[in-house]
Amino acid sequence: LRRIITLTTDFGTKDGYIGAVQGVILSINPQAQVMDITHQIPAQNIRSAALCILNYYSFFPEGTIHLAVVDPGVGGPRKPILIQSERYFFMGPDNGIFSLALQKEKFSKAIHLKNPKYFLGKISPTFHGRDIFAPVAAYLSLGVKPEEFGPRLSKLEKLKLPAVKEYPQKLVGEIIHIDNFGNLVTNVRRAELGDRQISRIKLKTKSIQNLSETFSDVKPGEGVAYVGSSGYVELGINRGNAAIKLKAKIADKVEFFL
Amino acid sequence: LRRIITLTTDFGTKDGYIGAVQGVILSINPQAQVMDITHQIPAQNIRSAALCILNYYSFFPEGTIHLAVVDPGVGGPRKPILIQSERYFFMGPDNGIFSLALQKEKFSKAIHLKNPKYFLGKISPTFHGRDIFAPVAAYLSLGVKPEEFGPRLSKLEKLKLPAVKEYPQKLVGEIIHIDNFGNLVTNVRRAELGDRQISRIKLKTKSIQNLSETFSDVKPGEGVAYVGSSGYVELGINRGNAAIKLKAKIADKVEFFL
Amino acid sequence: LRRIITLTTDFGTKDGYIGAVQGVILSINPQAQVMDITHQIPAQNIRSAALCILNYYSFFPEGTIHLAVVDPGVGGPRKPILIQSERYFFMGPDNGIFSLALQKEKFSKAIHLKNPKYFLGKISPTFHGRDIFAPVAAYLSLGVKPEEFGPRLSKLEKLKLPAVKEYPQKLVGEIIHIDNFGNLVTNVRRAELGDRQISRIKLKTKSIQNLSETFSDVKPGEGVAYVGSSGYVELGINRGNAAIKLKAKIADKVEFFL
Repeated sequence: LRRIITLTTDFGTKDGYIGAVQGVILSINPQAQVMDITHQIPAQNIRSAALCILNYYSFFPEGTIHLAVVDPGVGGPRKPILIQSERYFFMGPDNGIFSLALQKEKFSKAIHLKNPKYFLGKISPTFHGRDIFAPVAAYLSLGVKPEEFGPRLSKLEKLKLPAVKEYPQKLVGEIIHIDNFGNLVTNVRRAELGDRQISRIKLKTKSIQNLSETFSDVKPGEGVAYVGSSGYVELGINRGNAAIKLKAKIADKVEFFL
Repeated sequence: LRRIITLTTDFGTKDGYIGAVQGVILSINPQAQVMDITHQIPAQNIRSAALCILNYYSFFPEGTIHLAVVDPGVGGPRKPILIQSERYFFMGPDNGIFSLALQKEKFSKAIHLKNPKYFLGKISPTFHGRDIFAPVAAYLSLGVKPEEFGPRLSKLEKLKLPAVKEYPQKLVGEIIHIDNFGNLVTNVRRAELGDRQISRIKLKTKSIQNLSETFSDVKPGEGVAYVGSSGYVELGINRGNAAIKLKAKIADKVEFFL
Repeated sequence: LRRIITLTTDFGTKDGYIGAVQGVILSINPQAQVMDITHQIPAQNIRSAALCILNYYSFFPEGTIHLAVVDPGVGGPRKPILIQSERYFFMGPDNGIFSLALQKEKFSKAIHLKNPKYFLGKISPTFHGRDIFAPVAAYLSLGVKPEEFGPRLSKLEKLKLPAVKEYPQKLVGEIIHIDNFGNLVTNVRRAELGDRQISRIKLKTKSIQNLSETFSDVKPGEGVAYVGSSGYVELGINRGNAAIKLKAKIADKVEFFL
């Protein structure tokens, strides 16, 4: 069965850890199609991983297995889980890493991965990516039923994004992610604005007029606010790096004047 | 059809943007073979991308689709294009990104990608990589004819590399790229030297005798000039990092004494 | 023949060098399955590459071709080699890059890659990865016999890791690698300790009690020593970065009190 297994981790690549994960998968199912999404999630940053997954998971074919391992609690009480939605499988630690994607998916069931029959022989307490997740993903790609891997789970950990504060004249959000281009992703979703018009957006002392469609709606070097490809309002600079130019960082407040 | 699609971008991997591109391609053509060349082109640096493409494109099998997205003008008037040469397809923004490769290829035709039938349903103004280039590349890999995607283009944007200045006793070039090892790529091509012998090469206060064949022609720690694998003269240090040791940077002048 | 070829290099990806290697392989054997392990080995760092290879090579299916190019001596007298063990093929420069893996493998034979029939037409003296290793790996994956590529070699270069010093009351090792999470890998292997109990571990002024099973055996922010997934004793900090917090670097001494 040539099923796709996507990989998102904070392992980096230089230590060979992710190579071991790939090897385990291909040893069990040589037909599996391993797609490396990223191994550059900032170390132990579950929120970054959740936002990354949100950006790609829904573009893959139905039946794709999305494996994500950002796992500060490895070896501790956090559970290794498999979640099945109407269209996809998600596999990783139960720490909220799939929360944002699951808000958009029709949930089917969650399984606590407990059946050692599908683990590597000897489990390293520091490397469940290789010893639990990789082999279980490979067996799943071969058609083993989710229930084979363990009992059902009724409750999952959730990722909490900071809430947007609503006032009569404005919304106050914050920067939750900075992307590769220095664009500043806020926690304000387009859907949240509804019919309300934004007259001005303020980050520290920098004001941006209105929401634009895209970067080139403003002159090179100017600030621009737009709805990013994942549905959140983002702040950027046409042909520039907003994070550097505005000295912005995660958790900086952003005001949206109505 | 198991056709290769290579990807070169400045997206990085950690935001999941490139994951979305991969997912779109595999959803349309599950048999496509997606080869990630790099997603680490410096942000919005078209010249770096053009030099990168020059280094690999010709080693792939005939019929390979080379997709490259470094796109500071996304959403603006720059055109999304498909270029067909005798051996390959090139797809990306019309901003000169394929100029260096096309100098070596027998040009066949260029198409302005305009037919929304082959785009994702709703086009994000900030993410043509996912919404235009990925699906068109996938349909092309399935055998859709280039003419299906839009009208022919008669004129393409060109990348301009800085010119080499010729004097009676010397050529003056400059550093146009610094590679992963700190080697300094100049804009002087071997072909350009013809029969002329170089007696000495000078970068700032550092002199290098002659052109060598390879690093180990000089002692460890010594400077060396050689013709790089893509045909440009490069300056390096045997078992060292020339960029760091010589404090060299892009656009630094290099003198070639005849 | 759909044989796996893994790639480990210090090329980075942004220059297109590794793209050329991939293209050469797929041009010769379109069925080869190229798995990028890493191209982020620190430049010219053979030891890092050897430790990386140790972490993944044995998890791949039998018959996998492990190609690794970290090659400070390229173009000089160092030999390009192919090593066959009972289960795998290893290909790269003869500089000790496979030493740690070979300590665990049943050696079969080594070949000096000399037969130009299997090289790219014109050999660049600076890029054997593309012109020698890539095509030979591709032909090997097609079933060409190792002996076809050149004569047998009886002696291989070996990587020397610093030795652990043994005293009556303690062992003194050192940090040989720092991983992506800032964990400090020492040169002390679990096997080396045998039945001896460790009472305390000291790095500079920092003391760690005992060997733990995993990170969560200590409180967040506390130091922990454990046997890493590759068998070496490592020092880390639960939910933290030991390299940064302890200002540790390669070659720092670590004392293991018995």
